[in-house]
Amino acid sequence: MPIKIHPVILCGGSGTRLWPVSRKDKPKPFLPLVGDRTLFEEALERASDTELFAPPMVVAGERHADLVEAQIGESCGHTIIVEPAPRNTAPAIALAAALLEPDDVMLVCPSDHHIADTDAFRAAAKAAAELASRDWLVSFGIAPTHPETGYGYLKRGESLPGGYRIDTFVEKPDRERAERYVAGGEHSWNGGIFAFRAGRLLDELEAHRGEMARLVRESVARGRREDSRFLPASAPFVAIEGDSIDYAVMEKTARAAMVPVDMGWSDIGNWAALKDALGSESDEAGNVARGPVDLDGCSDVLALSDGPRISVVGLEDVVIVVSGEEVLVTTREGAQRVGKLPGASSQ
Amino acid sequence: MPIKIHPVILCGGSGTRLWPVSRKDKPKPFLPLVGDRTLFEEALERASDTELFAPPMVVAGERHADLVEAQIGESCGHTIIVEPAPRNTAPAIALAAALLEPDDVMLVCPSDHHIADTDAFRAAAKAAAELASRDWLVSFGIAPTHPETGYGYLKRGESLPGGYRIDTFVEKPDRERAERYVAGGEHSWNGGIFAFRAGRLLDELEAHRGEMARLVRESVARGRREDSRFLPASAPFVAIEGDSIDYAVMEKTARAAMVPVDMGWSDIGNWAALKDALGSESDEAGNVARGPVDLDGCSDVLALSDGPRISVVGLEDVVIVVSGEEVLVTTREGAQRVGKLPGASSQ
Repeated sequence: MPIKIHPVILCGGSGTRLWPVSRKDKPKPFLPLVGDRTLFEEALERASDTELFAPPMVVAGERHADLVEAQIGESCGHTIIVEPAPRNTAPAIALAAALLEPDDVMLVCPSDHHIADTDAFRAAAKAAAELASRDWLVSFGIAPTHPETGYGYLKRGESLPGGYRIDTFVEKPDRERAERYVAGGEHSWNGGIFAFRAGRLLDELEAHRGEMARLVRESVARGRREDSRFLPASAPFVAIEGDSIDYAVMEKTARAAMVPVDMGWSDIGNWAALKDALGSESDEAGNVARGPVDLDGCSDVLALSDGPRISVVGLEDVVIVVSGEEVLVTTREGAQRVGKLPGASSQ
Repeated sequence: MPIKIHPVILCGGSGTRLWPVSRKDKPKPFLPLVGDRTLFEEALERASDTELFAPPMVVAGERHADLVEAQIGESCGHTIIVEPAPRNTAPAIALAAALLEPDDVMLVCPSDHHIADTDAFRAAAKAAAELASRDWLVSFGIAPTHPETGYGYLKRGESLPGGYRIDTFVEKPDRERAERYVAGGEHSWNGGIFAFRAGRLLDELEAHRGEMARLVRESVARGRREDSRFLPASAPFVAIEGDSIDYAVMEKTARAAMVPVDMGWSDIGNWAALKDALGSESDEAGNVARGPVDLDGCSDVLALSDGPRISVVGLEDVVIVVSGEEVLVTTREGAQRVGKLPGASSQ
């Protein structure tokens, strides 16, 4: 019988880059950005095959626990781990690991990504789980489609069954290096999807970030269950010095591996990325409209409204978003700066 | 003692080109588009010097009579002529003429224009009134600042005291001809500002559009006063076949004259024209903002909001208007097509 994979769905993030639709109270994972389902619902659905996956664990802040519950709908045997405070990904993942059996294999999935090809995701999940069960710490290595300078890259090393050792972790490169990586074929994007054996992950955390491991253990030991929720003890968790799983473990372990995957992945990191992900909804001029929108002589325009009508004349390659009492108009270039706008940062 | 000029302020127009701010219920004249005062208030103010001007007559539709009254504020001895139906400028002007004494000189002023230089306006008004008192039918000939293809042009003929005969009326020219007109110096824009001796105007109307003249006379004879309002009889007025004063009289009379004037005139015919008229309010990058607006890396952007915040990133030379439940985004080119948008034409 094949191993069952324990999906660990992370619902963090402050939701400023897709402002004003994404807000702190209802960030990106909980919005139906692509298609009718939210990104969180898509993440659940991808891991819903009970042949392959155990019931999901969801790590979310208290502010979003009710949203998570509502979008899960009927119980699927899930657990919601309510983070007492945001402490980045390493403590969040370690909480889940500490609630699993040491030999359980966990698949860490951010919930703010869109993945077009579910079959490719599942195949990679199986390969990653196999490696994880042999005590590799496995990252999905996403086939880069363009020389993105906003992501970290993984350079593949020697071959492993179903994957590769990771030779190097590359921080966000400059444009020139990113172009070489895409052309060279040895680098993948680090998309934040990981497979671990729970016990091994905790051992590695103990080795590299002992204090964090101790505080996570204490949070779990002193935590309590309430129906489907697990509430870690607040005091020790809040005392953790937060860090990403990449810095805390992946870049330090001797057993970092990667599974290459090409699955139509997008982190929908800004409005331009969403427009690209919505390509299939566009009209013949490349426009995508949601809500009451009138376009005259426009091309490559993304216009979204939650109520007021948007009328656009003669524009090209811009994004217009009307949400609540906010109106955003940005170019593709400008989309990267949306999170820094007064409206986005002062929520 | 110099003649007193009777200002006749026309408040017609359907207000679609500056939609969504300008609406049928509150069109362009009644909006504070440039500065703090509405264009109608500016028109009143320009003709408020009692040394030079008699109390104003305002011609407006019933729909706007209360707005007119409210923006006039305290009575200044004005008369509001309430048009029973819109029949273009010739009948509107003739109504006012019929209520004046034959030797009164009237100055017809549209209320949807902005004039930056009031002194130049007054000087031209005096010159035009002088010519009108000698039975010339006088148009302001506005110094063209660019090869506009949306206006009619006046070609000057032989010299008159303070002005010229009009040699030719030119319909909206094509671009090439407009460029020649601007370069040549013999052509002016026909801005819709006229001076007439009231009796002469009615005589000319009688000669060229006898039926219109008769129906206007009948509307006035059977009309009635109510406080400051004059209500022409509806039945004869509605029966008029509407026409502009240009077609009905100016292009037919043998005594058409013009007074050249350079007074910072704009008809604010679309959003791009308003942006130009607001040039003095712009920041160093040429942006003009009204209401809650955040701009990042923008130039030559006009952003107006009546409530919701507008955030703009990386745009150049666009107009963004938020008004009521409508959001408009247009380029300079596109501004000419705003009146044809579903939102503007279906009010």
